[in-house]
Amino acid sequence: MRLLVINPNTSESVTEKIAAVAREAAANGTEIECATAHRGVPYIATRAEAMIGGQMVLEILAERADNFDAAIIAAFGDPGLGGARELFDIPIVGLAEASVLMACPLGRNFSIVSFSSRLEPWFRECIAWHGLTERLASIRMLDAPVSDVAGIQAAQADLLVELAERAINEDGAEVIILAGAPLAGLSTLVRDRIAVPVVEGVAASIKVAEGLVALNPRKPTSGSFRQPIPKPATGLADALSHLIETGRLK
Amino acid sequence: MRLLVINPNTSESVTEKIAAVAREAAANGTEIECATAHRGVPYIATRAEAMIGGQMVLEILAERADNFDAAIIAAFGDPGLGGARELFDIPIVGLAEASVLMACPLGRNFSIVSFSSRLEPWFRECIAWHGLTERLASIRMLDAPVSDVAGIQAAQADLLVELAERAINEDGAEVIILAGAPLAGLSTLVRDRIAVPVVEGVAASIKVAEGLVALNPRKPTSGSFRQPIPKPATGLADALSHLIETGRLK
Amino acid sequence: MRLLVINPNTSESVTEKIAAVAREAAANGTEIECATAHRGVPYIATRAEAMIGGQMVLEILAERADNFDAAIIAAFGDPGLGGARELFDIPIVGLAEASVLMACPLGRNFSIVSFSSRLEPWFRECIAWHGLTERLASIRMLDAPVSDVAGIQAAQADLLVELAERAINEDGAEVIILAGAPLAGLSTLVRDRIAVPVVEGVAASIKVAEGLVALNPRKPTSGSFRQPIPKPATGLADALSHLIETGRLK
Amino acid sequence: MRLLVINPNTSESVTEKIAAVAREAAANGTEIECATAHRGVPYIATRAEAMIGGQMVLEILAERADNFDAAIIAAFGDPGLGGARELFDIPIVGLAEASVLMACPLGRNFSIVSFSSRLEPWFRECIAWHGLTERLASIRMLDAPVSDVAGIQAAQADLLVELAERAINEDGAEVIILAGAPLAGLSTLVRDRIAVPVVEGVAASIKVAEGLVALNPRKPTSGSFRQPIPKPATGLADALSHLIETGRLK
Amino acid sequence: MRLLVINPNTSESVTEKIAAVAREAAANGTEIECATAHRGVPYIATRAEAMIGGQMVLEILAERADNFDAAIIAAFGDPGLGGARELFDIPIVGLAEASVLMACPLGRNFSIVSFSSRLEPWFRECIAWHGLTERLASIRMLDAPVSDVAGIQAAQADLLVELAERAINEDGAEVIILAGAPLAGLSTLVRDRIAVPVVEGVAASIKVAEGLVALNPRKPTSGSFRQPIPKPATGLADALSHLIETGRLK
Amino acid sequence: MRLLVINPNTSESVTEKIAAVAREAAANGTEIECATAHRGVPYIATRAEAMIGGQMVLEILAERADNFDAAIIAAFGDPGLGGARELFDIPIVGLAEASVLMACPLGRNFSIVSFSSRLEPWFRECIAWHGLTERLASIRMLDAPVSDVAGIQAAQADLLVELAERAINEDGAEVIILAGAPLAGLSTLVRDRIAVPVVEGVAASIKVAEGLVALNPRKPTSGSFRQPIPKPATGLADALSHLIETGRLK
Repeated sequence: MRLLVINPNTSESVTEKIAAVAREAAANGTEIECATAHRGVPYIATRAEAMIGGQMVLEILAERADNFDAAIIAAFGDPGLGGARELFDIPIVGLAEASVLMACPLGRNFSIVSFSSRLEPWFRECIAWHGLTERLASIRMLDAPVSDVAGIQAAQADLLVELAERAINEDGAEVIILAGAPLAGLSTLVRDRIAVPVVEGVAASIKVAEGLVALNPRKPTSGSFRQPIPKPATGLADALSHLIETGRLK
Repeated sequence: MRLLVINPNTSESVTEKIAAVAREAAANGTEIECATAHRGVPYIATRAEAMIGGQMVLEILAERADNFDAAIIAAFGDPGLGGARELFDIPIVGLAEASVLMACPLGRNFSIVSFSSRLEPWFRECIAWHGLTERLASIRMLDAPVSDVAGIQAAQADLLVELAERAINEDGAEVIILAGAPLAGLSTLVRDRIAVPVVEGVAASIKVAEGLVALNPRKPTSGSFRQPIPKPATGLADALSHLIETGRLK
Repeated sequence: MRLLVINPNTSESVTEKIAAVAREAAANGTEIECATAHRGVPYIATRAEAMIGGQMVLEILAERADNFDAAIIAAFGDPGLGGARELFDIPIVGLAEASVLMACPLGRNFSIVSFSSRLEPWFRECIAWHGLTERLASIRMLDAPVSDVAGIQAAQADLLVELAERAINEDGAEVIILAGAPLAGLSTLVRDRIAVPVVEGVAASIKVAEGLVALNPRKPTSGSFRQPIPKPATGLADALSHLIETGRLK
Repeated sequence: MRLLVINPNTSESVTEKIAAVAREAAANGTEIECATAHRGVPYIATRAEAMIGGQMVLEILAERADNFDAAIIAAFGDPGLGGARELFDIPIVGLAEASVLMACPLGRNFSIVSFSSRLEPWFRECIAWHGLTERLASIRMLDAPVSDVAGIQAAQADLLVELAERAINEDGAEVIILAGAPLAGLSTLVRDRIAVPVVEGVAASIKVAEGLVALNPRKPTSGSFRQPIPKPATGLADALSHLIETGRLK
Repeated sequence: MRLLVINPNTSESVTEKIAAVAREAAANGTEIECATAHRGVPYIATRAEAMIGGQMVLEILAERADNFDAAIIAAFGDPGLGGARELFDIPIVGLAEASVLMACPLGRNFSIVSFSSRLEPWFRECIAWHGLTERLASIRMLDAPVSDVAGIQAAQADLLVELAERAINEDGAEVIILAGAPLAGLSTLVRDRIAVPVVEGVAASIKVAEGLVALNPRKPTSGSFRQPIPKPATGLADALSHLIETGRLK
Repeated sequence: MRLLVINPNTSESVTEKIAAVAREAAANGTEIECATAHRGVPYIATRAEAMIGGQMVLEILAERADNFDAAIIAAFGDPGLGGARELFDIPIVGLAEASVLMACPLGRNFSIVSFSSRLEPWFRECIAWHGLTERLASIRMLDAPVSDVAGIQAAQADLLVELAERAINEDGAEVIILAGAPLAGLSTLVRDRIAVPVVEGVAASIKVAEGLVALNPRKPTSGSFRQPIPKPATGLADALSHLIETGRLK
């Protein structure tokens, strides 16, 4: 099984973090390949940036999807997820989506903990889009400056653990999700310092993707994720243009 | 007062329809200018296409926003609306948003009627994003072939009226929204053939935009629509890049 | 265009405040006339008082509606709004309704700030009736004594600004509505002291009413706001009795 | 125990129907007295008429509440219920409210069946006000002409039973409420012709009122139903005026 | 009328408390009999224990239901309520259910106050099952050690009153429910120390059960509470086995 | 990794079906063991039967949990799931839960299709308990006689496919779940006859359980699934009694 893990941010250092956790989580026989956005911003934090990152996801998939059994959009907030499910035949998994789906059997609700309050609206709208707001206890955010996104995990670990405890004690959180690709791998390190299960999102994404591939679902020919009707496309990246115009990968 | 009306589709013929209705609806002293996407598809019908159209909206606004008092995103589905509100200081109005806001005082709920069932998921997610699903009676769609998007209004008027009557009689709709920019102007033509008020979306957008400009709201320095933190941007259109990197229009 | 602005309270001094803001907000060519309830209480604060004020709205409209293009019920809480929409052919706008509709494009949610905790249940039920609770961040209330309702704005301005800031910082409010007709005009004065947009409700009502008149909606012959079936009426004000018994204005 | 049953309609013949069922349902030692509105309409069917009937409820209670242990508003739709709870110290029960509360332990949801589609919006808003929409399966209405409101029960019984069966089979209703005071007593007659429990609303009201009196609840001094602050009142019925101005019954 | 009050806990001392309040609340002519679980735990506090207690309710009812007009499950959380309604023909009332139904006409919402935070998830899921979460203001819990469940009422009365006041002041509670059978009778003692109505759950259960018996509802032959299809049963208590296998009481 | 798959029904033939699909789905290195309830009914269809089956799940787990890394409750409706998560340290997965979690990334909603309308209330309450009703398009049920539960799959396959197509075309379902352990394995057989992805629930359960084990979550010491407080237990199965009384497996 081959999984494509897409970082919709331009930061290669974050891609490396993701890749390490993804390979650690992968089952025997699962090959992981990673891709990094070559346009956009180093870390998505707003709706505007998510729109740009989401389009990059579509472009990367248009170029590479046919070599993979499933793909993972490795930014919490799942940019481009809906559109990718329309255009491509393989299962597509969002990092936020997989995190919350795997959190569900571990507690009656979950809190999302991350490093910047700027991310909160995007995360909240993502959970709402997934129809899972009923399971969301709270979103708790640091207000750390984000000058070094790759170093944020080491710098903020203690504060994030503290914030997780507040989510547990004040918001009744029963599972903690340390959200955001720059925090990949942190869950394992702090597991024993937090009173409830902590979901490692990248690992969760790999397991959900592996599970979906095992279920061997067909591409729908009905419903909102069936293939769009081909139509003219102007000024888009080559492979994406071809896909929109023909309904087929190049 | 100067309003910028943005068609996120590439079809100039649709822009012309929109412009005609917009100018008709504008108050004395309101100037209307229109812009058409130069990249993307002729009519957005899916989440993937909306993501592309939404990025065009951001690019066009980055180039032109400083000459206007407010802007209108003239595609039902409001592509790019959230991101635009973050990046720009002027009020931004979505065509779907304005339609439903003006529908609210005219009935306890509304139905959306349009020409292609392909649009339904995008429209439904748009209404949910606005937090107005509680007022949505139903979405009813023709399954007309959309080969000639500009001609669809003339070709389908009777079927759309019929569909509106079914929304009224079977779904209890108290207001009808004939949705989609290609239907601009149709509401007025069929007003007397439908038993409840019909909202002309482009006209509603102009009135909501004029109203917001009159209220003279400040750009928030708190909350999810405050200016994003400047950050590096790679490979984007020039004016948008400048805005993301500096927080200022070029 | 002629708009009738109805104060369902008996306090003429509040009507004057409303009138001043309404005239300031009106477009060229919009004429504003005001009416004050001659029965009831000086300021409505409870469900019981709203029921009395709502009946006054129906009586005033029965007498005067045929000279106007639209009417505004200028008490936050919108007393009599549903009934008025049944009985009359012109658009009827509620002060609360217009405030929240114009707040929607300015932030993902809004908080209502006002001068007396007694008002909270009535306001909350009003927002629920409009189906807009999903957009309501919080209601924050002073507990000021209300001996001089017309003077409350000057006396409490600083405390209201402070309360607005708490709504922003503690409840995540992205728009502030300074609610209640006695606060008419305050929004403009404090605009620059509050970190998010502040909606002036009376001005919003005028703009929504003007917008609806421009849309030229028909009186529905289907749905919950179609004309009621004529029936005998006993002991009611003359014009209202005539309307209920005949379905026509006198 | 003394219960006051208020018919907010002006039709004495309906009051008699209500009285008969109420007395039949009352426990030993429960005395029933009835009152009929002397202003308003013979049968309330709209929001406007409910507002008028609701004010009559307040007037009647202001005159007579001090001789009773509890009161029942005997029109489905519960006109004036919220206001009455503010102004009076005794428990006040709505006919719709009692019907749905007693329906809850008899099935996982209920349908409301009645004689005129005109009543549907008012009934639906009533259930929403009570926060019980989650338990509402459907509202099913005849479109019978309502020339003789007292005779409607005899004339429409068979059609109402048929409609109840459709609610059961098509909407999954597990309890039927034959709604509206003119149908008082019908539930007992058709009990064995309907596949699920049928709630007799007037009887339910008596049992809920008796239960509340037995629980001996205090008048709240906190919350939305505490006594309103006294304030001047102009042009209202004498006893109601006195109550609003002094906070005390005359 | 004969009512069976079932304590699904094994603590006879709690049954006695319940019995005393139940007899006090019963109308003339209502006979109360009580039953105590002979298997299970002394006080149910978790979902696992509720499942065990619920099965005991089914067993006790299978043995004794045919001598009674209605039954009450006298543990807040209503263990076994859904299953009991399927299997038996008489009305079955839950202690939590009756408490909240009688709380509804006394305030726009209610808070549940009890002695152990361990109970909170069970109580919350119970209210959600009843579809009444919209009326729930909060659940407030002591963290008292529960070594002597029968003595808990005397020991904790003051702290519970204090907690009730916090629910009123901080959560906006308009009715208080002192939840849990070990608190039976406490409501009456503290009634005057709490600013809003306090519902005595056992008394409420008796009044709801009496009311339902008076309404004389039929056993449904449609819907989710109709009699299950008989099927083989292995290893269950004798009377319950017989009922499942034949659809009839022994 | 060792997984315990528990059939809470007494039908060994169904256990065999489940076991076959589970072993097919398991990854290399995953060992599957199955257990069948020795008390209860051959197929659970009601809330009462689910309560009995749920207690069996607790008993079986109390005896065997310490030899396994995770357990699966292999009846759609997830009997005993909440209680099991309290009492045991390993991840517990419900068949319904896993089915819907894996359905989520495959479509914006799902429909549940099964063989008996008797199951509908139980399934619906299960989905509500999981907080996933927002994603549920519909539940569609045959009304097949269930004399031979093991043979039902072969007998009803065509009708179930037809029902799935109705869910897709009339309810807008984007994923189909063929629900109920007796249908284990059917999804694979009919995959190509249904226009949207079909989730095989037993396979989904194995993949979710494997994923959870890989995430290595801790037993919470906070929240609703922490270990209950030990307390006396009377008359229960030996191992379950020991667990409740000591908080430890025997």
